Parts: sequence; structure tokens; C-alpha cells
Amino acid sequence: MSEQSPSSDTLNRFAAIVGVSHALREDADKAPYLIEPRDLYAGRTPMVLLPSSTEEVAKILALANETRTAIVPQSGNTGLVGGQTPHKQGSEIVLSLKRMNRIRDIDPVDNSMVAEAGAILADIHEAASAADRMFPLSLAAEGSCRIGGNISTNAGGINVLAYGNTRQLILGLEVVLADGRIWNGLRRLKKDNTGYDLKQLFIGAEGTLGIVTAAVLKLFPKPTDYATAFITVADPEDAVKLLNLVQRLSGGRLTAFELLPRVGIEFTVRHGGATDPFSAPSPWYVLAELSGGEPAGTLDAVLTQSLERGLEQGLLQDAVLAASEAQRRAFWAIREQLSEVQKHEGGSIKHDVSVPVSRIPDFLKEASAAVTTLIPGSRPVPFGHLGDGNIHFNISQPVGADKAAFLARWDEVNDLVHEIVLRYGGSISAEHGIGRMKRAKMAEIKSPVELALMHDLKRLLDPNGILNPGKLLP
Amino acid sequence: MSEQSPSSDTLNRFAAIVGVSHALREDADKAPYLIEPRDLYAGRTPMVLLPSSTEEVAKILALANETRTAIVPQSGNTGLVGGQTPHKQGSEIVLSLKRMNRIRDIDPVDNSMVAEAGAILADIHEAASAADRMFPLSLAAEGSCRIGGNISTNAGGINVLAYGNTRQLILGLEVVLADGRIWNGLRRLKKDNTGYDLKQLFIGAEGTLGIVTAAVLKLFPKPTDYATAFITVADPEDAVKLLNLVQRLSGGRLTAFELLPRVGIEFTVRHGGATDPFSAPSPWYVLAELSGGEPAGTLDAVLTQSLERGLEQGLLQDAVLAASEAQRRAFWAIREQLSEVQKHEGGSIKHDVSVPVSRIPDFLKEASAAVTTLIPGSRPVPFGHLGDGNIHFNISQPVGADKAAFLARWDEVNDLVHEIVLRYGGSISAEHGIGRMKRAKMAEIKSPVELALMHDLKRLLDPNGILNPGKLLP
Repeated sequence: MSEQSPSSDTLNRFAAIVGVSHALREDADKAPYLIEPRDLYAGRTPMVLLPSSTEEVAKILALANETRTAIVPQSGNTGLVGGQTPHKQGSEIVLSLKRMNRIRDIDPVDNSMVAEAGAILADIHEAASAADRMFPLSLAAEGSCRIGGNISTNAGGINVLAYGNTRQLILGLEVVLADGRIWNGLRRLKKDNTGYDLKQLFIGAEGTLGIVTAAVLKLFPKPTDYATAFITVADPEDAVKLLNLVQRLSGGRLTAFELLPRVGIEFTVRHGGATDPFSAPSPWYVLAELSGGEPAGTLDAVLTQSLERGLEQGLLQDAVLAASEAQRRAFWAIREQLSEVQKHEGGSIKHDVSVPVSRIPDFLKEASAAVTTLIPGSRPVPFGHLGDGNIHFNISQPVGADKAAFLARWDEVNDLVHEIVLRYGGSISAEHGIGRMKRAKMAEIKSPVELALMHDLKRLLDPNGILNPGKLLP
Repeated sequence: MSEQSPSSDTLNRFAAIVGVSHALREDADKAPYLIEPRDLYAGRTPMVLLPSSTEEVAKILALANETRTAIVPQSGNTGLVGGQTPHKQGSEIVLSLKRMNRIRDIDPVDNSMVAEAGAILADIHEAASAADRMFPLSLAAEGSCRIGGNISTNAGGINVLAYGNTRQLILGLEVVLADGRIWNGLRRLKKDNTGYDLKQLFIGAEGTLGIVTAAVLKLFPKPTDYATAFITVADPEDAVKLLNLVQRLSGGRLTAFELLPRVGIEFTVRHGGATDPFSAPSPWYVLAELSGGEPAGTLDAVLTQSLERGLEQGLLQDAVLAASEAQRRAFWAIREQLSEVQKHEGGSIKHDVSVPVSRIPDFLKEASAAVTTLIPGSRPVPFGHLGDGNIHFNISQPVGADKAAFLARWDEVNDLVHEIVLRYGGSISAEHGIGRMKRAKMAEIKSPVELALMHDLKRLLDPNGILNPGKLLP
């Protein structure tokens, strides 16, 4: 792959594929595609291409492969690791899937939907809902992220506990390969053992092995009944035991089990207008939710019974069941505001990590101690998906400290925490992927055998290195 | 890969790796490894190797790669498509994983278990149960099949509706590559987005890309409450609508939804000592089961309510709830005997197929009509996992016809049915894999792009073609 800008002739050939009005060359038009949410990875590009069909994507890649032009696939541009924007040298063409946003088909009896890569996740939710079904992938960016990006990053979100990551929600894929060939794997089968399951290669590959243009998504019955409780627990050990207990008693219906620390409640009360659900403080909290299709009230009874059992076993101190949809929303607002309210407390250093569920208590103890030893007064605000082993290990700056000076220690804190995560058999990218942010880390966290296999796959599927170069692989 | 038998010197080097007592050379010792359940693919081998560790497997593959010796990995030897036995020419060495049968670790809090490839599925069930957990993969061969084979064939079975195929039950793998390198991917994380998910390559690859030596398995809470009903329905259309209704009303707790035809009930009453659960005959039946951890009775109430709703909507005519564990077992015995009782009715031609769930009614109509037109008097006995789109489309011979003459038309009937399956977007191997039996079909059912990708992967991971040659790929 060349680091030189494509020639004017080559650019014209690309433009001809999509039509000049969909080949953006003006700085003002290109700008939105060159910055990303955290503004860490601004890049340059000679052209942003907006194809409208799989065939156009295929023609673009065939030409890119022929001319050794690097292509950066972009979907909703909500990624947090710099995987979706071009580098600074300005030789890479951005291929945005946003015009390919159709829901091609929905089959509620089959519980499946065929969506193009550019379909916005919220639009997919809406289409599923209109057919009395649910697509469970749900995350903060759902109003603007697009399913192609969700697939290419194997997105997680709040419903993983019951429904799995994006990988588990995909029945089939349509992919354009680096040389422009189209692989139509848009199957909608629950069982199919006819050879290698090729779609798995492209899920979570961050656009480095092929460009996903469409997918068959699994749908589920739409929950109509919820039971939601805010619970006080003494420590993460008890929270993990309570998780096991509630999972056992509630069958497959536990759809959220979120851990929150006292400091998180304080922040949301102070800055988010939240009301503390309890009169006395507790060191730790759990927000648990069951959902299903039962007549209203069934799940409340199951959750109440689980919590009574937990109380008997000393795993919790107090619990409040949401008595109305309004109260349920108020409970969730506390959880959902946790990232936002931290901004009012100054700088926050974040980690996207996971460890085996049984190791969470020890991990939290060790990592919190290490961070507060490194930066006295810093305030760990660990919260998130306990059932997935995925804790957002965020550190708020010491009260009154200099924000910039604190944030300047981001890498140092990350390195400290990542070392502990790895020692516990964890992942330094639970949800967001590698992109550019963690690319250099790959050489540290993966064995030579695993890295060699990854590089082999890359060379096999993209021999000229035109697909999203400089991302994911070290 | 050579088709010549390995030299005596090479055989001695292989034997030295595992010790001579674990390198079988006598015909009587080798015999059990050379035939398979249906006795269709008897083969020959100069040696059966029984390694006891991953390191020994690595040494065997390194030597095989050096000497271009073909290796046929074998686990429980219960596969039905000839994937696990050597060919007739006698040049391939069988590598049995059966001595590597340890459960290395079990973590009930984390809901995970590390098992070696040779662990028998029933032993895994027992170990999980002893820790108050469940490993949901369950199939007829579970008393003798081994987890390495289950993984390499992405086994399905009776719990796929709620828990997924084997692929969904694997958190991590340890694999020996064709050149003897060991890839340790024994992670136990629910969320890990650090690069390509390599384990997916080896699941369902039938031992052609690497040899799985150990795996991290997902465990689940052990169900303690069941609600089971035998239901009469007018036709498969109503059965599919009822499936949708029960799924919606019962949350994630519908764990089985099996379709049975009238003729199947007649066969089990006639030959299996079963009692027809109903006084009047019905053209079709459904066996539905919910399971979970609720106090006894909760699920009966949910199922009863779902069935009342189904009755109101005219989707079913009658239903009997199992009033005891004994009755539940009697219901299941009818379903489980369906293959066996067909033997008393003469020859049976079988199909391992799936179609999208919404297409099942049309598929059954068209395929049954086509088969009975081709062979007048033949009796379709389609039954199985409606919720997975996976119907065992078995055809019993006409009453009084010649069995051998009927069975001689196996391929002709298969071809007829497979053509219909493919037209409905289905799979000609829902559960059993490709092996030798359906290898030639691959060129017909897969696009050139898909076949090229599969061959590319094979060449990448096994450049000398030593791993299970002549299987899966056309």
C-alpha cells in the first residue's frame, strides 16, 4: 500500500464509480469524516466516497486493490479507538457506508432482519419494534452508530448478559473482499455446519479483512414486563455471589446486573439531579433487571423472591423494587449518567477492560489500591456490567488537583491497570477494539503464535494491505 | 501430503513420542478406531497414536509436517459423516485424543470449565452438575462422544433453542497447529475485543485446520423446575405461530419445541410401548418445555397461560401438561424413540437439513409431496427442532416394500430433498458436518468465492495438507 496520495486520475476513477456528487473533495464536506468523538485521531483524506450499493463498494475495492490505494471504511464514526478515521499523511480514501442504510427485509416469524451496513442502530430497533420484535444490541451511541461498525467492532453494550455480544446476534453477512469480490453469506439459519464459518472472520476485524455491506440479524421477542431493583451490597464479592443466586433463580431472564460504587451515587446526586434510592449510604450498589413476556407482576415476584433469598444469605442489606416505569427510568438514569457526571469532578482516566467474573473482586481491590498509591487522592469510580466481567474502571482526579496534569498521566495509569488486568487473565479491550489506540499494545498482550496467525490472516485476505492499514495489527 | 505409508523409521519416531504402549500397531488394537457408527467408512492405518498431553500432540504434528504424514484426529468416534476415520489406502495415522480426558479446572462463580479434548460429554455434564451448574450441550451420543469432536463439528443437539450450538458455548480454545506450534487461547472472558477471534477458525473445522486439545466451556445455572406439554396442532404453520407465541410469553425459558407427525406417534405406540397422550389422533404434535430455577409450579403457570392463549387464537386443539417427572420422561421418551422405532417399519432414508424457521411449513409440504411422488407409498416422518429450523426429514419405506431396494434409492431421495432445501435457503448439513459423506456436494452448494476462501484458509493453516485430508473441502 502506497503512502503517496492517489493521482488525480485515480481519484477521478473512484469518483466515477459513485458519481461526483457522492465523492467529496471539499474540506468542509470531508471534515465530519476526519474527526472522531474524542478528537484524538484527526486525519486527512483526498476523498470521501459514499457508495449506494454493494456493487459500488466492490468496484471501489477492485480499483483500490489495482492502484494500491488505502481504504478506510467508516460507518457511524462513533468508535473510540481511532479505527474509523484516516491517518494524517492524507493518502487514504474514506469509504463511508452511510448511504447504504436500508432494512432490506424483516421476517418476524423467522426472527431475522437483513440490514445494510449503514443502517443506524436506532432505526434497526425501530424496525424490529414495528414488527413486535427486538434487536437487543444497545449502547450509548445507538442514535448515530451504524450496524456495519457494530459488527466490525463486535460491539457489546448493556444487553450482553442475556443476549451476547454482536457476534452472537449475526446469522449471516455480505462482505466485499479486498480485491472487490463479493461474498454473499446472507444466510438466516440457526444450524448450518457446511464448512468453515467464514462470517466469523469479519466480525470484530475492524474493517481490516473485508468490508461488511449487509447482515442478517437475529431478532427476539419484545419484552413487555420488567422487574428492576436497586440493591445495596457490602462489597463486590457479595455482588458476584448475588449475581449467581439471581441467575439461578430467574432462568434466562436476568438481562442486567450492574455494579455501582458509593462515589458514583454521590456524583449523580450532586451533578445529575438524581435521588439516592436509600436513606443510608452503602459502599456498593447493584442495579438488577429481569425482563420477559409474562403478564405484569410475574417478574417482580421472581425478583422479590431472589432478593429475599439473598437477604437470608447476607449477600445484600437493602433493596428497592421499581414500582413504576417512571421509577425504573429513574434507577437507570443513575447508571446511565455515571460517565457524564464524572466530568463535573474534573478529569477522568478511563479503561475498557474485562476480567473473568470470579476475579472481579480481587481485581477491583488491587487496581484501586495501585491507582490511589500512584496518585494519592485520585478517586476510582468502577462501575458497569458485572455479569460480563466488564467494569468501566474510571478514575476521577483528586479534588482540587490540576485537570491537565492529572490527564497527562493517562498512559501511566493505563499501563498500571492493564498490567493488573492481564495478570488476572483479562482483556485490555473488552468492548471498543484496538484501532490505533491500542495497536502498539498488541505485541505485548498476544503470544508470538497468535500474532503470527493474525498477520497471516491479514496477508491472506488483504495481500496488498489496502484495508484500513495501520489499525488493529501491530 | 503423501499417499504412501510412512516408513518404519517414521513410525518408530511417532511411537517414541507417546511411548510404544500408546502407539497401536496390531490390527485388533487398531480396529475400534477404523470403523464408525454407520459402518460406511471403514479405513486402514499403520498406527493409532494416543498422546497424553498437548505437548505430545505438538510433537506428533511437527513430525507429521516434517515427514508429510497425514493425521486423522479422532475424538469419541461418533461422527456420522466419516470425518473421523482414515481412508482405505492406509497411509494416514489416527491421532486419538481419548487419553486427554481431564477436566483441568471448574469455576462455578465464573460459570466456566476447562476441559481437555478427550473428555466425554457425559463426564463434563457430571462435573458441571457436581458444581451445581449445567453444560447445556446434549445429544444422543453424549455417553461416548468427546468434547474435542463436539467442538470440531460445532455439535447441535436438543438445547440449541435456548443455549445455541457448541460455537456459542466456547469461551476459549487451545489448539495445536499443523506445524506443531501450540496456540494457547484458553481465555475465559465474556467480552474481549483484542484482534481477530481465532478460536472461531477451529470450531466446526472438522480437524482440517488444527487440532483442538482443550477448551474453556461456558456453564449455566442448573434448571430445577420444568414445565413440559404435549400439544396437538393442525399443521406446521400453526406450530410455528405457537412457537412465536410461547417464546414471547415465556421469556428466555423455552428450552425445547419439537415437532412430531401423527405417523411418529403411531410408530412409538406400536413399537416403543408408548401411550398416545391423547384419546383422538391429531395430524401434528408439539412437545414444548420450559426450564428455569423458579420454585416448582411457576413455569407450569407460565406454560398453561401460553397454551390458553394459543387455544384462544386457534393455534392448538388440545394439550397435556406433564403432572410429574415420570410423565415428563414419558413424553420425552416418545420424542427420543422416534429414530429407533422407525427401524421396525423397514428402511429409513435420513436427512440432516435445516431451513429458515418461517419456511418450514412450505418446505415440509413440498418435500413430502416430492418424495411420495418419487416413491409412492413411502412415508415421511419429519420431526425435530422446529425452533432451530432443523427437522429430521426421515422417510420410512412403503409398507411391505423391499428394504434393500428402498435404501438403494438413498442418494436419489437425498438429491431431491436437498434441491428443495437449497431453494428455501437451507442447509444440507444442519448438525453433522461435511466429512466424507457430503464433501462432493460442497462444490454444488457453495459459491466459487466461498469455496476459494475456504481453500485459502486450508492452505494458510495446513500448507502441506497433513490434517484430515480428503474431508470437508471438495
